[in-house]
Formats: sequence, C-alpha cells, structure tokens
Amino acid sequence: MRLSRFFLPVTKDVPSDAAIVSHQLMLRTGMIRQNGAGIYSWLPLGFKVLKKIEQIVREEMDRAGAIELLMPTLQQADLWRESGRYEAYGAEMLRITDRHDRDMLYGPTNEEMITDIFRQYVKSYKALPLNLYHQQWKFRDEVRPRFGVMRGREFLMKDAYSFDVSEEAARISYQKMFAAYLNTFDRLGVTAIPMQADPGPIGGDLSHEFLILADSGESAVFCDKAVLDVPPPGADFDFEDEAALKAEMEKRTRFYAATDEKHDEAAYAAVPEDSRIEARGIEVGHIFYFGTKYSEPMKADVQTPEGKLATIHGGSYGIGVSRLVGAIIEASHDENGIVWPASVAPFDAGIISMKPDAADVAAVADEAYAKLTAASKDPLYDETSDRAGAKFNRMDLIGLPWQITVGPRGVKEGKVELKHRASGEKSDVTLDEAIARITGA
Amino acid sequence: MRLSRFFLPVTKDVPSDAAIVSHQLMLRTGMIRQNGAGIYSWLPLGFKVLKKIEQIVREEMDRAGAIELLMPTLQQADLWRESGRYEAYGAEMLRITDRHDRDMLYGPTNEEMITDIFRQYVKSYKALPLNLYHQQWKFRDEVRPRFGVMRGREFLMKDAYSFDVSEEAARISYQKMFAAYLNTFDRLGVTAIPMQADPGPIGGDLSHEFLILADSGESAVFCDKAVLDVPPPGADFDFEDEAALKAEMEKRTRFYAATDEKHDEAAYAAVPEDSRIEARGIEVGHIFYFGTKYSEPMKADVQTPEGKLATIHGGSYGIGVSRLVGAIIEASHDENGIVWPASVAPFDAGIISMKPDAADVAAVADEAYAKLTAASKDPLYDETSDRAGAKFNRMDLIGLPWQITVGPRGVKEGKVELKHRASGEKSDVTLDEAIARITGA
Repeated sequence: MRLSRFFLPVTKDVPSDAAIVSHQLMLRTGMIRQNGAGIYSWLPLGFKVLKKIEQIVREEMDRAGAIELLMPTLQQADLWRESGRYEAYGAEMLRITDRHDRDMLYGPTNEEMITDIFRQYVKSYKALPLNLYHQQWKFRDEVRPRFGVMRGREFLMKDAYSFDVSEEAARISYQKMFAAYLNTFDRLGVTAIPMQADPGPIGGDLSHEFLILADSGESAVFCDKAVLDVPPPGADFDFEDEAALKAEMEKRTRFYAATDEKHDEAAYAAVPEDSRIEARGIEVGHIFYFGTKYSEPMKADVQTPEGKLATIHGGSYGIGVSRLVGAIIEASHDENGIVWPASVAPFDAGIISMKPDAADVAAVADEAYAKLTAASKDPLYDETSDRAGAKFNRMDLIGLPWQITVGPRGVKEGKVELKHRASGEKSDVTLDEAIARITGA
Repeated sequence: MRLSRFFLPVTKDVPSDAAIVSHQLMLRTGMIRQNGAGIYSWLPLGFKVLKKIEQIVREEMDRAGAIELLMPTLQQADLWRESGRYEAYGAEMLRITDRHDRDMLYGPTNEEMITDIFRQYVKSYKALPLNLYHQQWKFRDEVRPRFGVMRGREFLMKDAYSFDVSEEAARISYQKMFAAYLNTFDRLGVTAIPMQADPGPIGGDLSHEFLILADSGESAVFCDKAVLDVPPPGADFDFEDEAALKAEMEKRTRFYAATDEKHDEAAYAAVPEDSRIEARGIEVGHIFYFGTKYSEPMKADVQTPEGKLATIHGGSYGIGVSRLVGAIIEASHDENGIVWPASVAPFDAGIISMKPDAADVAAVADEAYAKLTAASKDPLYDETSDRAGAKFNRMDLIGLPWQITVGPRGVKEGKVELKHRASGEKSDVTLDEAIARITGA
C-alpha cells in the first residue's frame, strides 16, 4: 500500500481521558476513532490488526476441531427468559424494543442462542462432541467504559460452545480449548498465563482465565515464573490424543498462578522466592465448564447409546478479540510507539523514500515495494513529501516489524538502511539482503 | 472437512412461510436458522458462503482503490440530528436508549458516521479522492420481513463512501465503483445488470441499481438482452484510466434496461423485438452520487489548491452481501437443489464414500481427500454410514461444483465416478483424472 493512497490519520491530539498507553497509541496512530462512549470505529490501520487477530483465532479454533458459524447481534428476550437470565443480567444488558413492541436485546454473550440452535438439530449422542464458535460483535452497557477498546461497550469476542454427553467428555472438550488458547496466544506474539478462575455454579476446577502481563492490567497477578517457560503445544499437537491434552493442562497448572481474587498467600509462599512474580495482568480469554446450567432449563437433551435421554454438558470459551489489540500494545511498545509482533502487524514492513522526487531514489524504493509484494509481503510505502523526521517518527509510531529507508547517498553506494523496529538495530545492506532478512529467505 | 465432524443439519422440514426457493433451500441445507423475525444465524455451510462473497467484494473494492475500515453497529442519535435524518428516517430505524438514557440507534446505513470521521481528519484536497468502505451488519426494522435473508432485518451490507473536491471528480469515483461492481458480480458467478435508478435530491444520471435476473425478483425488469453480452472490465482493468472508466459505463448504458419504476414504453419499443427481455430482478447493489447532501449540513470542507474552502461531494455504494447469498441461489438452482458458482461454493468438491467400512474404498476416498486438500482445494468428505441415496441427495442438495463417488466396483477397476453438478455429467475416471478436472490442472 502506498501511503499517499492509504488513510492513516496520525495525530498528536490525544484526549486527556485516554489514560493508558494502548488507548493513547491507538488514537495517535489513527487506528480507532471514538464514535460514542465505549464505541469505536476501526480505521484502516486498526482494522487490519483486528482482522489478523481474528484470522489467527479462527485457524487455531479450526485446528482444535471447532466449527465456525455466525449468530446475529440481536436476540429475542424470550430465549433469555427460558434460562432465567433476562431479569438476572442487570443493567449491562442493552434492552431494545422493536416496532412491534417485541422485547429484544443486543447479545452480550450467546449461551442461550447456541443452546437453542443445538436443541433444534441435535438429537443423538452420535453428533457429539460438538464445538461451535463465532466471532461477532457484542454489547455490554458498562457504566463507565474506559481504556479504549480494552473496556468498550461494543466489542468483538470469539465465543465457542462445547456440547458433550457427560462431564467426563466435556472435560476433554475443555482441555482442547485450553491447548488451543495456548497456541493462539503464542501465535499472537504474547504470553498469556492460564489461572484458575471462579468455577461458578457447579464448582470443580474447569474454569481458567488467560492473562497477559502488562503494567496497566486490571488484575494483580501472583505466579511462579516457571509457568512462563512452558512451551505451547505447537502446530503439530494432536487434539485427539487425550493423554497429551491432559498433560498440556497439568504442565502449567502445577505452577502457582493466581489473580488477586483467588490469591492464596500460603500456596504462594511455597514458590521459590527467586521464582515469584507479582505483576499486573489483562484478561484476554476465559474458558468455563458450566455443566447443565443452560441445557437443563432449555431442555437440550440427546439420546444416549442406551436409548435414554441425557441432558448435555456444556462449556463456553471466550477470547476478547478487539480487547487483544489493546492488550498486545500494552505488552509490546516503547517510548517511540507500538512494536507489533510480526503475526499481527498491520503491514509487514515500511519503506521510506527519503527523496521521492529523485528518480534514482524513487526507482530503488519502487523496487523494494515490488519485491516485497512479489514475496507475498504487505509493505507500507511512504512516498510522501513529508519531512524526513516526520516520516521516521511516524514509521516508529505505527511499529511495523521492519523499515527500509531509501536515501540518495545509500542509493549511490547500492545500499538501503534496514531497521528492525523491536531491537532498533540498523544496518546498511543491499536491497536484496534487506528483502531476504524481511522474508526470512 | 469430514462430514462426521462438520455441523450440517440438513432437514426436510421447511416452514410454510418460506415462500421462495432460496429461502427453502437455505433452510433445507442447514445454511441458516431463524432466530427471530428477519434475524438469522448463519450455520457453518451458510457462513462459508457468506465469507466467500465478503472476500470477493473486498478484493474488488481494494482493486478499485477503496480502503477498508469498520464502523460500529450502534450510532449516536445526535449525528443523525445533524443531517436531519433522525426524525425523517421513520419506523425502519431501530431506536435504542442506553442505561444513561442516551438516544442511540442500530445503524441502517453510515453516511453520517463516515462524514463525521472524514471531517475529523481530512482538511485538504491533497487527501482526495478518498473512498472508504466497510462490511458490517445493519438493521432495518422492516414491517414485514420476508424471503429469508433477501429481506431480513439484520443484514450484512458492504457500503462504500467517496469524497471528492468537485462533482467532476466525484463522477470519476462513481465510475470506478460502477466498473468494480461489474467485476464483483462477474466473479460471484452472476450477471447483474446496471439500471438507471432514481437520482434523489440532486438529479442527474449518477444513480444505478444492479439487478440479477430471477423469477422471484421483486422488481419487473425490461431490457435489451445485448446488455448481458458486454464483458466485465476484468482483472487487468486500469482504474486510473479515466477514458476507460467512462467507456465501461457507456458500453452498458447505451442499451435499454429499466425496472418498472423507471420503465419508458417508448424507449423500450425502440429495442429490436427479438432482443427484448421482460423478466424479474433482484437488486443486489446500488450506487449513488448525492453531492453535498451530508457534507453541507455536517460541514465537511476541505482546503482547495487556491486556499479556499470547498464542501466535499459524496457518493455511496452499497452491495447486499447477505442478500446475495439468497440471490445467487435464486439465479442458480435446479429441482435437486443449489448449483453453486465455483467462486462462492461452500466447499470445492464433495467426496462420497459408498462403503466407508470397506478398507479398499476408504483408502481411495481418503486419498481423494488428501490429494484435493494438498491441491489447496477444500473438499467435503462424506464418510458417514448413511444410505447411498441419502448421500447422493444431500450432495446434490448442497450443490458443490464437483462430486467424486468412490464405490467398491469402481475401486476394483481403478476408477471413481466424477460428477459435474451444474451439467449433471458423470464419468468414470481414475482418481488422478478426477483431481485434475477439479483443480483445472
């Protein structure tokens, strides 16, 4: 993309209520624009990051055997009356009345609707296990939306729902999501630590939050830093291997890790002193086994092999897709701006032409653009007539993994400057060397 | 995808209010599930088609120089008060009040919001022309939603908005969208005819609807069939070539084509008799130049080269993405089910294993699955123990472009049966021949 044809409204004006660095940086880089309290437009740069995260989440859910669909944003109140949550949900539910005076709501989550879809079609244990997910906008009418997209009102969530014939089978579905989440966050370039969370109505151990460490996190986190060193299951992980699924959970849950809500001083004291971490964390995922909480009142039953009816056992598995954009920035930035992990960077590399009106400079910069594009990379090509300093600052601010700077002196020597954003390391290399570094060839 | 792991709730039960064939077929194939009046879930098969259409629309918009972003579903009423449309829009606008008693609405369209974004950031003619688009769910509270996704209340629309410094420049932006739409519909496997539409407040000729011919269409269509033979601009079309842009419009608009609303008997009589078509059509796109209708009340001005302020000239360009799923089925089905154009088919091919428990049959069917997948095709592999007839009917019903049937007799002879869904043509060929036909190798 040529910058002159893109829409990248970088700005210095940041409102005083942008209290955390990700909110400030997303406004400064023109990633988002606020349209109302807790409601944002995703401008082109932000939209690209959002889509990359969505795609990685999709690929990892698919790999774990979940099936994607898409439920609508608006729901009928009657469904929520069946589960008993319509009155219980409180003021965070945005209630809506249509022209025929029907009670509706903007979905804050989809347990009821997916259970309704399930009971309509699935009658036999033979169709199980089943895990259905979607990535759809939700609305929660927070009293005080804040922190930009981290606690917005309209937000994009991936929510998956598993259906199993027994608690034992549901545990395996849960473990699949546990493993899938580890792979997902790893690919997103962040370390998310699973921590035991409140089990809810049915007790047990099958409820985990995944938190990214960042100074602005809303939760205090206490953990054994050894948990950070356990590698993710990886792309070759076999989601049908039950022993491996169990092991992935155990590998991590044997280390202490808890938020302030669940913190146990005595257990934490048993962690070797030099291995203790007290930090702050941002919740980016939550997985949860809820048994028959929805299937019982909503009568979601299947026939068992013995010909009896069994109420299905369910779980739900959320990832805050739009929140992750902010969370990744919280975890990955410096004084000059964002430092994107390569997998979610809005562009793979920036090309700065120092003198777009000099034919020799333009030719090399054009060549860089053409070669990166031919190598299936997506570069952002700054061929504007802005001042050099403004160009460098902007490129650092938006934080693409690599920068190629093409200037008159370098061109005469057959060199460009390659900069690695994360390390700040610069080197004068030939264009082909720069391309090879960026493409990993 | 193995069918046993997919969620494909094919059903024979179709409610009596499903009046048109696309609605019936989408319910029978388990593509959608109704969650309320005019509100649908996109089950996995339907979701895949929706995503393919969305992606083709995206690629063609990008090729024409439009830039994608994403605006939220909910909007502030105050923006619509600025343009004067809040009161004017009527009962189709879903009005919402949040917990702080703020007036909001579920966006039925985004002229106000995009104009607000534009005026916030763009101050100079140098940033123009600019065309920003998104693909987002909209809501229109239709009195009587019907025809499934063809006239739903919550629907997915691609809407683009162009900003130019003058009417003359806006005409070029309009022509780019005209050409992009022809390419888009061509890639979607349908013929959409552009027809002059009501110009709205400012008059002129820059308003066209794009209609697909189908018996269930809501509009009567009168046209010269020669318009159907004009080829699309194509993938190599140069959107910066102003003469070519103008020519693309003229090539079509010189032939008579009108809906009943704009029909002119006298002009139609001048069409050679054997070239006249009277049919019905489904509107799938609408492009529209509206001048300063929003920019004037909302004060969206830019600095001109002469240092003056100019009110920008705008246009909007819609494609009914979710409606297209139904419209394509209306245009492409037979008595056995859907006949998907290859570009939007939910899977590229079906593989039917006639005897999944016979090792030799399973081995060949597995090989077909592996080879198609290796060739970057996305097959649906029916390895269930359902009856043969049920398998054939289901595969015809969901309408994938190709079917490979692997049976015991064929396997002994080293052959599989390849069926082309659209023509019904069957042939006994080796597996490699079948793969070559499907991949076009």
